[in-house]
Amino acid sequence: MRLVTYSTNGSPLRLGILLGDDTILDPQLAYCEKLIAAGQGRAEELAQALLPSDPTAFLANGDFAVKAAGEAIEYAAGTPQTSALYNKADVTLGSPVPKPNKIICVGLNYRDHIQEMGREIPSVPLIFAKFGPAVIGPFDDVPRNAHLTQKLDYEAEFAFVIGKKGKDIPRADAFDYVAGYCAVNDITARDMQKRTLQWLQGKTLDASLPMGPCLVTKDEIEDPHNLNITLTVNGEIRQTSNTKQLVFDVPQLVEFLSHIVTLEPGDVVCTGTPGGVGEARGIFLQTGDVVRVELENVGVIENRIAE
Amino acid sequence: MRLVTYSTNGSPLRLGILLGDDTILDPQLAYCEKLIAAGQGRAEELAQALLPSDPTAFLANGDFAVKAAGEAIEYAAGTPQTSALYNKADVTLGSPVPKPNKIICVGLNYRDHIQEMGREIPSVPLIFAKFGPAVIGPFDDVPRNAHLTQKLDYEAEFAFVIGKKGKDIPRADAFDYVAGYCAVNDITARDMQKRTLQWLQGKTLDASLPMGPCLVTKDEIEDPHNLNITLTVNGEIRQTSNTKQLVFDVPQLVEFLSHIVTLEPGDVVCTGTPGGVGEARGIFLQTGDVVRVELENVGVIENRIAE
Repeated sequence: MRLVTYSTNGSPLRLGILLGDDTILDPQLAYCEKLIAAGQGRAEELAQALLPSDPTAFLANGDFAVKAAGEAIEYAAGTPQTSALYNKADVTLGSPVPKPNKIICVGLNYRDHIQEMGREIPSVPLIFAKFGPAVIGPFDDVPRNAHLTQKLDYEAEFAFVIGKKGKDIPRADAFDYVAGYCAVNDITARDMQKRTLQWLQGKTLDASLPMGPCLVTKDEIEDPHNLNITLTVNGEIRQTSNTKQLVFDVPQLVEFLSHIVTLEPGDVVCTGTPGGVGEARGIFLQTGDVVRVELENVGVIENRIAE
Repeated sequence: MRLVTYSTNGSPLRLGILLGDDTILDPQLAYCEKLIAAGQGRAEELAQALLPSDPTAFLANGDFAVKAAGEAIEYAAGTPQTSALYNKADVTLGSPVPKPNKIICVGLNYRDHIQEMGREIPSVPLIFAKFGPAVIGPFDDVPRNAHLTQKLDYEAEFAFVIGKKGKDIPRADAFDYVAGYCAVNDITARDMQKRTLQWLQGKTLDASLPMGPCLVTKDEIEDPHNLNITLTVNGEIRQTSNTKQLVFDVPQLVEFLSHIVTLEPGDVVCTGTPGGVGEARGIFLQTGDVVRVELENVGVIENRIAE
């Protein structure tokens, strides 16, 4: 499944499932219709409980949600008159996880990026945080506030999303706890990142984590460690690499992180960025720039830098 | 008001109000009783909406919650037979904010601690994060996992809690966005903190932020910048200072942080620790140690280091 959130005319974001390239199914609405058609009592309450419109709650529901979502897809396929289908062009997409419980970022995790920053390959993962208000949708604008930063930079990243609560997870079981994958851009204010010993203030500006375009569930990705990732600015390629260059891969990160902190459904782990960041090139993002991240088999996010 | 959370026999934590030293009022239950006694329809739903049992939702309710809480206190005072009162000795206290939206920690913010760590007074606040699973109640055990760390350390801190959503808040308006204050112990694994450039992994172990004993609303504290803070280990004083030693005070931090990130009800800002940490003394916490933080006019939190 390709999970998204969508909004119509500014309404709150709701969970959707991308069908093909252009159609979005609201699984809760479809499931509710199906229950009503079958004469089921308390259809709305049951649909809300089993298929929450909030993606984090959907992930936490585990098999309950997956089973009901499958029935919703089947119902919609056989019911052309359903009102649970939307044309993608008619809605606004939000982040597939609009309110992560936590956002864990891994730094210095691509060999080429480590080289360009003049650092050494770490023996343990380096981690830092972003806060919830950083998250925006896959095509939302990224604000640039010249009073705060003169050195706004991009970082294309492959991210995975936790689907099940866990602590001290062995590497071999890691994928049991992973819901799926998405692309992110870890927008960073380099000057703010470096003015103190800790990077957080340059990493967690509001609207500094475009995310999407969807959360592709893990069953749809044969090998998460062999995905091309490319970032362009105004069409010019700036970063291009493959997730096989990761120093610490998904199972290693799940094991490492879960020894430190309980992982929860809706947690987002951004796995680090490859070489080619603006700082290494001495050029930073300017108002009007369009930054595009493409992650193979997952999709494209594209964001304009706004004043 | 002195807000707490409490649990009876392992039930989920609910918001309570500390009355005197020994009594806890469940404001939602009392308010519901009051509405029922007055013949009000939908008493339970109204009480749940106006006085949520979750402290973050309570804070987000603002004046609605404060007004209803005042009525609940008045009702309980005149209704000895109410079932909304508990003896503090019969319940377990949780953190006054069990699930903060974000936990923002300020480092190097007491002049004496900066000196003992051999660092310079920063020109801008240094900030880092802890994640939600770090939060525990004021008298809960702190686990020590010898496989992870040999250098578990304490940091007594004065914390403030955000009560109102805000961005770009001017210093002069800062207290409009502060709900109140509590004591925390920013338990830190020094070896994990220092093995990479970023401190996060040594800062955010599960159960590494005891918090409480209550959230004292700001109206009860005449001057938050003149509170004694003392930490003892097994009765021996290790840290003793006063919040007037803060390099960046509450209004400065609210202004600074809100330029970076939207502040939300239930956000916790830990303002840094004074001198006397174990690392500076070359001694670390061992299983069985009892660590006690006392913050003047706020109260005491006391936690045992468990295996």
